[in-house]
Amino acid sequence: MEPNKGLVSALFLSFLLHATMASPTPKPHIKPRPPPHHPCRHLTFYFHDIIFNGKNSKNATAAIVGSPPWGNRTILAGQSHFGNLVVFDDPITLDNNLHSAPVGRAQGFYIYDRKDIFTAWLGFSFVFNSTQHRGSINFAGADPLMNKTRDISIIGGTGDFFMTRGVATLETDAFEGEVYFRLRVDIKLYECW
Amino acid sequence: MEPNKGLVSALFLSFLLHATMASPTPKPHIKPRPPPHHPCRHLTFYFHDIIFNGKNSKNATAAIVGSPPWGNRTILAGQSHFGNLVVFDDPITLDNNLHSAPVGRAQGFYIYDRKDIFTAWLGFSFVFNSTQHRGSINFAGADPLMNKTRDISIIGGTGDFFMTRGVATLETDAFEGEVYFRLRVDIKLYECW
Amino acid sequence: MEPNKGLVSALFLSFLLHATMASPTPKPHIKPRPPPHHPCRHLTFYFHDIIFNGKNSKNATAAIVGSPPWGNRTILAGQSHFGNLVVFDDPITLDNNLHSAPVGRAQGFYIYDRKDIFTAWLGFSFVFNSTQHRGSINFAGADPLMNKTRDISIIGGTGDFFMTRGVATLETDAFEGEVYFRLRVDIKLYECW
Repeated sequence: MEPNKGLVSALFLSFLLHATMASPTPKPHIKPRPPPHHPCRHLTFYFHDIIFNGKNSKNATAAIVGSPPWGNRTILAGQSHFGNLVVFDDPITLDNNLHSAPVGRAQGFYIYDRKDIFTAWLGFSFVFNSTQHRGSINFAGADPLMNKTRDISIIGGTGDFFMTRGVATLETDAFEGEVYFRLRVDIKLYECW
Repeated sequence: MEPNKGLVSALFLSFLLHATMASPTPKPHIKPRPPPHHPCRHLTFYFHDIIFNGKNSKNATAAIVGSPPWGNRTILAGQSHFGNLVVFDDPITLDNNLHSAPVGRAQGFYIYDRKDIFTAWLGFSFVFNSTQHRGSINFAGADPLMNKTRDISIIGGTGDFFMTRGVATLETDAFEGEVYFRLRVDIKLYECW
Repeated sequence: MEPNKGLVSALFLSFLLHATMASPTPKPHIKPRPPPHHPCRHLTFYFHDIIFNGKNSKNATAAIVGSPPWGNRTILAGQSHFGNLVVFDDPITLDNNLHSAPVGRAQGFYIYDRKDIFTAWLGFSFVFNSTQHRGSINFAGADPLMNKTRDISIIGGTGDFFMTRGVATLETDAFEGEVYFRLRVDIKLYECW
């Protein structure tokens, strides 16, 4: 494991700082807010999900492959789609235009997991294979869709994103019926190798 | 990345220790047990799973949404439920009482993945939005249900649990028929930001 | 968190190096290739997947439990199996022989997630319980099957693999019809506790 220069500088500084302190400071009763963290890398993308509805097989990028006993696989189920498992292979673009040249693919699944409000659990990857980016970023976490922004975890990466970790902030940028939606993804990496 | 004081202290100590050693010690033939690790944060919760069986739609917090060819979606399948995919949105409580005020929701899925014994693979989040905790903890791993305790990975977190990692020890605290079970979750975080 | 000696040595070296540099070097315009990383642990295994096809219930280690609207659960669907969710409990062996004594089980799922080419998203664990290894390694990531080698993330571990992270390189070692395949998995751990 090779720490990057930023880490070493931080450690060096903290080391000096630490050396000047006679004893550990006692824990205060009120939890202090942690200092803001600065990402070592920051990227923003959009991705576009078109769910198969029985008629749009040419354009669809996603399909319902699991449903609750009261549902089927061509229409999202009642009760906030609870129990629908959707598999997707969505184009990633740099701007919010579905027809822009894709820079990668968002591949994986989401499962709607609440009966009273739209909420999903996500497991997916951003897969890049262009001159700009090569490799993958892996994501997992809860996505309470009705919140303006939601944070999920970046749990690892490969290639240009080797061993990375971070947080991704999702925002629903557009939503058309129950067939198309577009997500804005703000990727903040806090561990860069 | 900002190392916490504990890390820096540990590094400082190890650094002094290291400086006094003339050469790296040779690897012994018998693998020594690693020193015990101390969590930077330790939390315990319970969560409650009630599987939809066709009759309990009001109380159910989970539903079967995938099954093997020999199964259906209202009764867990034979062969140790192999192939059943269950989606859940379970209340999290501080004690083992289903009717205690929930402090968050456990949301995600499990898949039974062995034919000869009950075992599942879990992907889920603890989602908190109370005065006590805000944010999410993300989990993944194998859950061999018949073992008294099982360890899974904490792969990330957001909000109050920003960038955390750790290990969660699961214990089945109650099991009633094939409809209700309660898990005790011992959360030990070893990376705290 | 206890850093291992390798980390401390690396930090010590980098610290000396850093101390000799008068000022941070300016970022060059062309991104330099990062230095190669050396795993703290390196393991190689094979695992064997036999998909249930309606006739092989005795030997099958995997079953289709979700399918797109145009598919079923005994034959992998058209369009590159897009939408098929497969649950598995596969034997892990040290060599490429299906009949060698298993050293553990590979348990979890994959979902085919592209319409035009074979690609899957994986979430699974290696579960060990032998004299050699005890504990689990958890994996997640995209698996573009048609590439000779593919990298996925190692997102955590338990027991002997407590808190580990790394990268696993997958290689399809054999493929027979649409029923049996064998993967070679090269496990490179870069965070060892």
